[in-house]
Amino acid sequence: MKKTVRIASAAAAVFLLCAAVPALADEGMWTLDNFPSQAIKEKYDVEIDDAWLETVRLATTRMGGCTGSFVSPSGLILTNHHCARRCISRLSSAENNLEETGFLAGSFEDEAVCPGDHMSVLLESVDITDRVAAAAEGKSEQDAKEARQQLLTRIETECESDSETAPTGKLTCETVALYNGGQHFLYKYKRYNDVRLVFAPESPIAAFGGDPDNFNFPRWCLDMTLMRVYENDKPAATPHFLKWREEGAAAGEAVFISGHPGSTDRQLTLSDLKWERDVVLPLWLLRYSELRGRLAQYGTTGDEAHRRAQSPLLGIENAIKVRRNQLQALMNDEVFARKQAEEKTLRAGVAADPKMQQAYGSSWDDIDAANEAYRGFYEEHLFLERLGAFNGQLFDYARDLVRAAAERGKPSEERLREYRDTALPRLEQALLAPRPIYSDLETLQLAFSLEKMREWLGPDSPHVGHILGSQSPLSKAETLVGGTRLADVEVRKALWEGGAEAIKASDDPMIQLALTVDQDARALRQRYEDEVEAVQEAAYEKIASARFAIHGTSLYPDATFTLRVTYGAIEGWQEKGKKIGPFTQTGRLYERTTGEDPFRLPPSWIEAKDRLDMKTRFNAVATTDITGGNSGSPLVDKNGHLVGLAFDGNIHSIAGAYWFDESMNRTVVVHPAIMMEALRKVYKADRLVRELEQTEPAAGEVVLGGSR
Amino acid sequence: MKKTVRIASAAAAVFLLCAAVPALADEGMWTLDNFPSQAIKEKYDVEIDDAWLETVRLATTRMGGCTGSFVSPSGLILTNHHCARRCISRLSSAENNLEETGFLAGSFEDEAVCPGDHMSVLLESVDITDRVAAAAEGKSEQDAKEARQQLLTRIETECESDSETAPTGKLTCETVALYNGGQHFLYKYKRYNDVRLVFAPESPIAAFGGDPDNFNFPRWCLDMTLMRVYENDKPAATPHFLKWREEGAAAGEAVFISGHPGSTDRQLTLSDLKWERDVVLPLWLLRYSELRGRLAQYGTTGDEAHRRAQSPLLGIENAIKVRRNQLQALMNDEVFARKQAEEKTLRAGVAADPKMQQAYGSSWDDIDAANEAYRGFYEEHLFLERLGAFNGQLFDYARDLVRAAAERGKPSEERLREYRDTALPRLEQALLAPRPIYSDLETLQLAFSLEKMREWLGPDSPHVGHILGSQSPLSKAETLVGGTRLADVEVRKALWEGGAEAIKASDDPMIQLALTVDQDARALRQRYEDEVEAVQEAAYEKIASARFAIHGTSLYPDATFTLRVTYGAIEGWQEKGKKIGPFTQTGRLYERTTGEDPFRLPPSWIEAKDRLDMKTRFNAVATTDITGGNSGSPLVDKNGHLVGLAFDGNIHSIAGAYWFDESMNRTVVVHPAIMMEALRKVYKADRLVRELEQTEPAAGEVVLGGSR
Repeated sequence: MKKTVRIASAAAAVFLLCAAVPALADEGMWTLDNFPSQAIKEKYDVEIDDAWLETVRLATTRMGGCTGSFVSPSGLILTNHHCARRCISRLSSAENNLEETGFLAGSFEDEAVCPGDHMSVLLESVDITDRVAAAAEGKSEQDAKEARQQLLTRIETECESDSETAPTGKLTCETVALYNGGQHFLYKYKRYNDVRLVFAPESPIAAFGGDPDNFNFPRWCLDMTLMRVYENDKPAATPHFLKWREEGAAAGEAVFISGHPGSTDRQLTLSDLKWERDVVLPLWLLRYSELRGRLAQYGTTGDEAHRRAQSPLLGIENAIKVRRNQLQALMNDEVFARKQAEEKTLRAGVAADPKMQQAYGSSWDDIDAANEAYRGFYEEHLFLERLGAFNGQLFDYARDLVRAAAERGKPSEERLREYRDTALPRLEQALLAPRPIYSDLETLQLAFSLEKMREWLGPDSPHVGHILGSQSPLSKAETLVGGTRLADVEVRKALWEGGAEAIKASDDPMIQLALTVDQDARALRQRYEDEVEAVQEAAYEKIASARFAIHGTSLYPDATFTLRVTYGAIEGWQEKGKKIGPFTQTGRLYERTTGEDPFRLPPSWIEAKDRLDMKTRFNAVATTDITGGNSGSPLVDKNGHLVGLAFDGNIHSIAGAYWFDESMNRTVVVHPAIMMEALRKVYKADRLVRELEQTEPAAGEVVLGGSR
Repeated sequence: MKKTVRIASAAAAVFLLCAAVPALADEGMWTLDNFPSQAIKEKYDVEIDDAWLETVRLATTRMGGCTGSFVSPSGLILTNHHCARRCISRLSSAENNLEETGFLAGSFEDEAVCPGDHMSVLLESVDITDRVAAAAEGKSEQDAKEARQQLLTRIETECESDSETAPTGKLTCETVALYNGGQHFLYKYKRYNDVRLVFAPESPIAAFGGDPDNFNFPRWCLDMTLMRVYENDKPAATPHFLKWREEGAAAGEAVFISGHPGSTDRQLTLSDLKWERDVVLPLWLLRYSELRGRLAQYGTTGDEAHRRAQSPLLGIENAIKVRRNQLQALMNDEVFARKQAEEKTLRAGVAADPKMQQAYGSSWDDIDAANEAYRGFYEEHLFLERLGAFNGQLFDYARDLVRAAAERGKPSEERLREYRDTALPRLEQALLAPRPIYSDLETLQLAFSLEKMREWLGPDSPHVGHILGSQSPLSKAETLVGGTRLADVEVRKALWEGGAEAIKASDDPMIQLALTVDQDARALRQRYEDEVEAVQEAAYEKIASARFAIHGTSLYPDATFTLRVTYGAIEGWQEKGKKIGPFTQTGRLYERTTGEDPFRLPPSWIEAKDRLDMKTRFNAVATTDITGGNSGSPLVDKNGHLVGLAFDGNIHSIAGAYWFDESMNRTVVVHPAIMMEALRKVYKADRLVRELEQTEPAAGEVVLGGSR
C-alpha cells in the first residue's frame, strides 16, 4: 500500500501505542487488497482466501446505485426489487402496471429489456497513487486539483483504449480516490449494456410495510428481482456465480457481504460534521419533506397519478428517513464528544512531531475555513449548479445536452469531469433511452424547486430575476414543460448528435433556460472547486497521510461506491431492553396485513397462503457493516454460497454514515428460503426454480460457484 | 417585587459585582410594574411617566394571538390584516372572497360581526406571589404543582365572581407566572365579545411578497385592518385611545411598542435549549414542511381549493420560517457557547453560597433528568394528547366536547385547567361559533396527521392499532370526516348542552374516536405533568430565585402573552457589510410587482397608482424587542401618539426567541403615512379617514389620547 506523503517517525510510533485505534468489531467496508482475513480467522475461526475473494468479486455486479450478484452461469442476477424499480417503472403504463401485477418471463424471449440500464463487474484494480502524487507535487491546491483531474482523465482514457485490443474486450475504466485521497486506484470493469427483467414480485409484497417499516426490523419484505445480462442478444455466460444455500445461515454463523457501499463520512473532520448537521441536512430535509407532501397529495388525485407518484415518492421517503436519522445521530452529544476526542487525539499525534505538524498541522483549520467561505454561496451553488432549482427529468436532459455540446469541443482532459470521453457512453445511453415523461409530474417538481430557489435565495436575488423574470414558479414551470420537446427521444437524439450547432439553433425553452443559467452556474462551480473542494481535498489528503503514519494499514477507507467486502454474523440485538431475534417467519406477515397500503398483500399471496409453510424464514439480520449502495448485495457464507439478499439496514444502521456501532447496527436481508418458496409456490416460476436449483450445492459440498 | 424564595447573602452581593448582568441595550419586554424609565431617560432623554403607561395600557387590546390598539373613542381598533385573517376567512365564501376583494364597511350597519372573536383590555394586575408560594410550601413537586393549580383556579374564579357586582362589570381574570414561576400575578381584563370587521385591504397588498418576503426587510406590506368593538349593539366607548401622527417618527427617534409578546425562551437552561434543538424543532419542521407541501399541492387543484388552502398555508409557512431560523440560531456554536458561559456563571454564583447551593443547586440537573425521562414518551404525548395525530378542526371539537362533558362534572379546581369555570365562556364561544368547515381540507389534514402518527410511533405501536385498526390513515380520515356531523353548529350545541349523557349516547364517529383516545391521552398527560412539568416548574422557580438573588430586579421576564412595553429607536442595520435604511417608499412597490402571486397588486392599487405619492413612507424598522403576539401592536412615540403598526420582525428577530441582538434584531411596522394615504386615495374610506383625522393631534400638541 502506498500513500502520497508519508512520514514515519519515532513520535508517530510512540503515539501508536496510546492512540485509540478503531477496534476491529465487525466494522469496516474493506477493499479486497487489504481484507482483514487474519482478524476474521481470530474472531470467527473462518479462512477467507484469495480464491474466495476472487469468486465473490467476479460474481458481484454494480447497477445504478445498487449491487447484485450472478446466481447462475447464464447471466441471471439477483438484486432488490427497489433496485429494479426504475426498469419496472419504465416498462409499466397505466394499462400494464408491473408494480401492481409483478412480472414473470415464461421464457428467454419474454425477458424484457430495461431501457437505459447497464451492469458492471470489477475485473481488476491498479494502485496509481504514486502517479497522482507526482502530478500534484509542488503545486498550489487549485493547480494540484486541476493537474490531478487531468491525469485521472488521461489514465481512464488510456485504459479504455488499451482494453479495446485486449482479450477482455472493451472495458470501462474509473479512477477512485480512497482514504479521502490518501490512495488513488484505477478500477477496470466489464460492462453489460443489455439488461433484461426476468422476474419481479408485486410492489406490495416487495416493499410490505412501505415507509413505516423502512429501516425497521422485524420485517417481511420480498425485496427481490431477477434480471439477466445479455451479450449479442444471448444470455451472457457468467462462469463466476454464487450457489444458493436455501436453508440460509444459522444464528451466530459468520457471514459476508460483497457490494458497492455508496458513501460514508466516518473520516470527516468535526468542522465537516457540523457543516452536515447545521447546513446540509436541515436544508435538504426541509425541501424534501415539502416535496414529499406535494407528491403524496398529487398521488391522491387518481389511480394513474398514484402510480406515477410512487417511484419518486418511495425514493424521497427513503432518503428522508436516512437523513433525519443522520441529523439525529449528529445531534447526539455523546457521540459528537467521542468524535471530538478522536480528532483531538489525532491532532495531538500530529502536533507531537514537528515534521508532521509542519506538513499536516493546518489541515483541520483549512477545512473549517473553506466551509466558512462556502457558507457565503452554498445556496446559490446548490440551486443553480447542483440543480436544486430544477427538479425533474427534463431540465436534466437540457443541462446535459447544453453542456455536452460545449464540452465535447474541448480535449477530454480539459472538460468538466462528467463529460470526459470515458463518461460519454453512459451519458449517451441515459439521454437516448426511451422512458415515459409525465408532464404533470415534471411541472410539479420543477415548479416546486423553482419556488424553493426563490425562497432560499430571496426574491431580490439577481439569479431569481434572471430565471423567473416576472413569472411565478408555477407559471414558469408550466411554460417550460408545456413548451419543451425534450420528452421526445428523437428530439434529444438530434440535439445530441447535432452538438453545439444544434443547441445554438434550438428554440426549445428548456434548452434556452439551461443556456440562460449556464454561465452563472459554471462560475459558481468554479468558485466551489477553487475555494472549497481544492482546499478540502488537499487537507483531507494530508489528514489521510497523518492517519497512515500513526495508525498504519489497520484502517479501511470511507465508502466510495466501489467494491468492498464486510463481515459479521447472523445476530439480533437489544432494543430498549428487549431482545430482537435474527429471523422472521411467514406466519406473522399474514397477521400484520390490513388489506390497505402499505400493509396490503397482493392477490397472489392471499391465494397462496394455504400452500405456504408459516414457519419459513422470511427476513433476517446480520452484524455486517453496510450502507446505501449495498442494496441487492449477496449475503455469503464462508463457502461463498448465497445465504441472503441485503435490502436494508435497521434504524441504527443510519448512524453508520458517521460511525459503526456493533451492538446496534444491523443489515436486513431477504432469506433464501422465502425467495425459493415464493418462486415455487406463489409464482410457480418453474423455469427459474430449475435454473437456481441446478446451482444448489449438494449437502456438505463446500466448493464455490464458478470455475475454481 | 416579591419572590417565592429569596436568599440574600454576602456571596450573592459580591458575585453581583463580577457577574455578567445583561446590558440594557434596547432589550426587554418589560412589565409595566418594572418599566425601566430611568434607563430610557439616560439613553434617549425621554420621560415615560405613569400616565403614559396607563393610557398606552388601556389603549392596547388583545385578540387571538395578536395585539391591537384603540384609535378612536368609538371602539375602532387598528391591528394587522393577518391578525384578522380568521375573521376575514370566516366571512368569505367561494362567491364572496374577502381575501381577494378586501372589505370596507360604508356605515356602522355594514360593519360585519366576526364569528367567535373577542377582544380584551388589561385593567389591573395584582401580585399574588406570596399566596402561591404559601400553597406550595413544603410539598413534593407533584403535590406543589397540583396545589398551585387549584389555588390559581380558585383565585381566578373568585376574581370573576367579585367583578360581577363591581363598577367595572364582569371581568375576565387570568393568573400568569412571570420569571418562569419566580412571580405570580392576577391579570384582570375587560372583555368585548362583539367584534366587527370595518376595513380590510386585499390580501395581495396586505401580504405583498408573501412567504418569500416574510421576515424580510425592505418591505412593502399594507398589513392593516380596522375592527370595532361593540357593546349592546352599539360602538363601544373607548376614551383611552392613541392619536395618530401621520408623518411618523424620524430616523433615530425613540419609539415604544405596547403589546402581548407570546413566548420567548431566553431563560431556558442549556438542557432545554438542546431539547428544542434536537427534539422539538426537527420533528415539528419535518411534519409541517410535508403538510405545507400537501396544502400547496391541494391548492393547485382549483380556485376554490386555492382559496381554502390559503389561511392554513400562510400560517404554516410563517411558522416554518420561524422555526427553521430558531433551529439555525440554536446551531450557532458561538451563541451556544455564550449561553453555556452564562449558565456556568450563574451556577458558579449559586455554588459559591452554601445556602443557595443547597436550595437551588440541583435545578439544572433536575431539568435535564426530566428531559431524559420525557424522551421515552415524547412522541406518544405529542401525537395523542397534544393532537399531533389529529390535525383539523373537527377532532378539536370532539376532544373539547368529550372532555368538557367529563370535566364539568367535577369541581372547577379539580378539572383539567382548560375546562375550569373561568375558561368555559371562551370555550363555549369557540365551539358554538358558526364557521365554514371544508371536508376535503379536513380529510387532508387528518389523514396526514394520522399517517405521521403511524410513521413516528411505528406501525406496531398499540396506540396506532387502537386508532387505525386495519384502515389506512387516508381511509380512516375519510370515514371520520364523512361520518361526523360536528361541522353542524346545532349538533355541537346539542352535545355541549347535553353534557355527559349526550356524549355517551352519541354515535358520531369523531366523538367515538375522541372517546377511544381519551384514556391513553390523559394517562400520557398525567405522566408528562408528573415526570416532566412538575419537576421543571419547581426547578425553574428555583433558578428564578437564584437570578433574583444575584441580579436583583434588573431583569425582565420571558414573554407570556401578557402586556409588555419595549423601547428602542427607528433605525436600520448592517447586513453583510451593506447598510439597510429604516424606511421604504411606495415607488419601489410598483417596481417589484410581477403580476403574479405573491408579487401581484390588487386592481385597486394598479388603478390608484397615478394618484399616489411615490415617496410616501411605506414600511419602517425599529430596534424594539418584540416577538410573535406583538403582531398588530402600536408603535408609539414619547407623546403616546401612534407612529406605526408592528406586523413582523426581520429575519434576525427570530433568534430573539433565545437572545436579543441589538445590532441586528428589528421590528417591521406599517408606516402611518401609507395607511392614511391608502385609506384616502386607494380605498376612498372617507368615513374612516374622518374618524381617524379627528384624533390627529394639532402640530406641536403633545397630550396623550384619552381622558388625561
